[in-house]
Amino acid sequence: MFKKILIANRGEIALRIIRTCKEMGIKTVAVYSTADRESLHVRFADEAVCIGPPASKDSYLNIPNIISAAELTNADAIHPGYGFLSENAKFSAICREYHIKFIGATSEQINAMGDKASAKESMKKAGVPTIPGSEGLLESVKEGIEIANRIGYPIILKATAGGGGRGMRVVWKDEDFEAAWDSARMESGAAFGNDGLYLEKYVEDPRHIEIQIIGDQYGTVSHLSERDCSIQRRHQKLVEESPSPFMTEALREKMGDAAVKGAVAVQYEGAGTIEFLVDKHRNFYFMEMNTRIQVEHPVTEEVINYDLIKEQIRVAAGVPISGRNYYPAMHAIECRINAEDPAKDFRPSPGRITIFHSPGGHGVRVDTHVYAGYQIPPNYDSLIAKLICTGQTREEAISTMERALSEFVIEGVKTTIPFHCQLMRDPNFRAGNFTTKFMETFEYVEEEEED
Amino acid sequence: MFKKILIANRGEIALRIIRTCKEMGIKTVAVYSTADRESLHVRFADEAVCIGPPASKDSYLNIPNIISAAELTNADAIHPGYGFLSENAKFSAICREYHIKFIGATSEQINAMGDKASAKESMKKAGVPTIPGSEGLLESVKEGIEIANRIGYPIILKATAGGGGRGMRVVWKDEDFEAAWDSARMESGAAFGNDGLYLEKYVEDPRHIEIQIIGDQYGTVSHLSERDCSIQRRHQKLVEESPSPFMTEALREKMGDAAVKGAVAVQYEGAGTIEFLVDKHRNFYFMEMNTRIQVEHPVTEEVINYDLIKEQIRVAAGVPISGRNYYPAMHAIECRINAEDPAKDFRPSPGRITIFHSPGGHGVRVDTHVYAGYQIPPNYDSLIAKLICTGQTREEAISTMERALSEFVIEGVKTTIPFHCQLMRDPNFRAGNFTTKFMETFEYVEEEEED
Repeated sequence: MFKKILIANRGEIALRIIRTCKEMGIKTVAVYSTADRESLHVRFADEAVCIGPPASKDSYLNIPNIISAAELTNADAIHPGYGFLSENAKFSAICREYHIKFIGATSEQINAMGDKASAKESMKKAGVPTIPGSEGLLESVKEGIEIANRIGYPIILKATAGGGGRGMRVVWKDEDFEAAWDSARMESGAAFGNDGLYLEKYVEDPRHIEIQIIGDQYGTVSHLSERDCSIQRRHQKLVEESPSPFMTEALREKMGDAAVKGAVAVQYEGAGTIEFLVDKHRNFYFMEMNTRIQVEHPVTEEVINYDLIKEQIRVAAGVPISGRNYYPAMHAIECRINAEDPAKDFRPSPGRITIFHSPGGHGVRVDTHVYAGYQIPPNYDSLIAKLICTGQTREEAISTMERALSEFVIEGVKTTIPFHCQLMRDPNFRAGNFTTKFMETFEYVEEEEED
Repeated sequence: MFKKILIANRGEIALRIIRTCKEMGIKTVAVYSTADRESLHVRFADEAVCIGPPASKDSYLNIPNIISAAELTNADAIHPGYGFLSENAKFSAICREYHIKFIGATSEQINAMGDKASAKESMKKAGVPTIPGSEGLLESVKEGIEIANRIGYPIILKATAGGGGRGMRVVWKDEDFEAAWDSARMESGAAFGNDGLYLEKYVEDPRHIEIQIIGDQYGTVSHLSERDCSIQRRHQKLVEESPSPFMTEALREKMGDAAVKGAVAVQYEGAGTIEFLVDKHRNFYFMEMNTRIQVEHPVTEEVINYDLIKEQIRVAAGVPISGRNYYPAMHAIECRINAEDPAKDFRPSPGRITIFHSPGGHGVRVDTHVYAGYQIPPNYDSLIAKLICTGQTREEAISTMERALSEFVIEGVKTTIPFHCQLMRDPNFRAGNFTTKFMETFEYVEEEEED
């Protein structure tokens, strides 16, 4: 087992990883930018190394500084968390060169899955259902229009290097194709330095359901059932749950099998997620594979009683997995608490937290790196806490979430807590009746504060 | 189902009950003494009624004021929590007179179990193993010495109205009998207004293992497996866990059966606990029955995924239970965090909490009514938080507890957190090798603060 792990991340996920390391008796090294000196991930690690100024490119994305910090502290492994360098093939390869174990996918696996067009090809070959579309990158508008007519509109144009909704355009007819093509290329070129586009049949009103998998170094892969992440706003997940209210046992078997098949085909090592779109007839299509831990991993942990970070570390150290699949025994929901103002189009609200009081009791888990007096820096994403509530049934999990949200006190900045309170009362949400379009019609209404 | 429940208690248990009521859609009424205006149980209830000055006898034990508060607010049930009026037969009877459902045992059941000598007789008749001793109250020193010689020393003298270790004396030989008798009578007379004594064979180095049961209004009783509460200091529990590290499947079956038999014999309704002493040969003896929810109930909730307060409310409302028993699927440990100075003989340390930060993450539950800025009143017990950690195994639960304790920040008052940190490192504790005598030899050593 590793003696010391450097966590190349910040915020709640860095603290999350430190917690499991402590429980495993592994020493930890935090790295931090000058904006994060006061973060709990720095306080709770055994050692901490400043790796640069606030801008991510100079600190959390600064590969030489992070490798130096690992060498300086004699860390024998690096956990990249999510975001930042977690799916950076170059970083994974450099860690290998320096004989530091990267707790994540190999550079080959990251490359195979990072290019979305080739990822789709690999999955298709492995027998995973994929959305009909172009074979690889489109050469021209003309080729795109031909394919669109063959598979039928609507179609969606996507950036091969994309993510977070950037470089995507839905097209409903030939006349709109060229304008969409031009703007998607421009956006993806600016965002990712790569303007390659592909196209797919656009699945209307789909659900976003993903399968968590884990693979060891010996070719064994298990699935850990699904998470439903359909409640999204501009492709940013807001609420996740497991099991999906739309799931059936038969569909779970099919999707689980497909996810395992896909992961085995790329000899996948570590924790990963295969994201699918599921249409109203319960047809499912491969969307993408994330070769890292996800923000929403705790809902899986709670319903199957499993520490995903611990298993990531174990498989990275060469421990074999049993190969059995895991099925939800409970129902868990996660609300992402962001420092954003839901009444002002979810505008970020950085600043100093003056009062912070976590909810507690049965069925409540809070993952956060903040506290009363903490200054939220404006430089990073606005996630300040994850509230995960678990019950015997979905109804119980929602009731516990409503109760826990009502107890959660964060003052000094605006947060998404009041938004989540309203969402939990929404009849369609409560009925499990939603798709990825849900947020397009959900209206948040600012309420008078009660206290 | 009830529309509104008044919680005749304070502190963490009042908040615990309010949480479940909220999740069940039941309105809540908090009652509070003038010392508790700022407690979270007052803040989170739908209504709150001040019932008197700080002294418990004038507020939390003030039956007329509590009944008035219930009538005033139209509460249709009262949950008494633990302590205070929870095992007061008169209060249970008065609630019935006023057509307010008392969420607990009937006055008959409380009386039957509250008098320890007659409780033992009932259990013996029901076939529950009891400790050999006097049949009912002792008439004289002479009778006591005769019985002691028949069953063999050591014996223990106990107050029939006793609790919390008061009115108890261990006697090892005839010559010491009379002095012990006199002092136990004086102590129990002063503490309980009842100086009746009985005697029992003294079980050396026993474990305190209790079985949680629940009964409905139709005579069905289930057991919810055991809790080990052997880590005690002067008969005050400090740490509780489920399952017991000393348990075997066969012993659990036997103890569970005995507990259910005992509860059925008294037609027990509600949640209750049968406490047993278990000797090193795994013989077990009935000690007493608590006709209320216990402080340590969360460890059971975590290992069987069950909300005990919810089930208490449901059976009080007439909902039948399934009758199946529950067995631990996980391992949970609870540390009682008291505002006490472990370096000064656990002397209470009331005062203002200046900084409060709860631990979080996977496997961590915190039940507390305090927060940064909260003034701990000197009038009540010193429990300020319960930290419950759960893992797949006992080792995992201990690791999570160590990690969570290391994150728990409470400043402004002394707490038992550093004591628990040391206890978790103790080789005998870690090996599960302890009896109720453990704390007599455990030495707490004050450490320099690291930060």
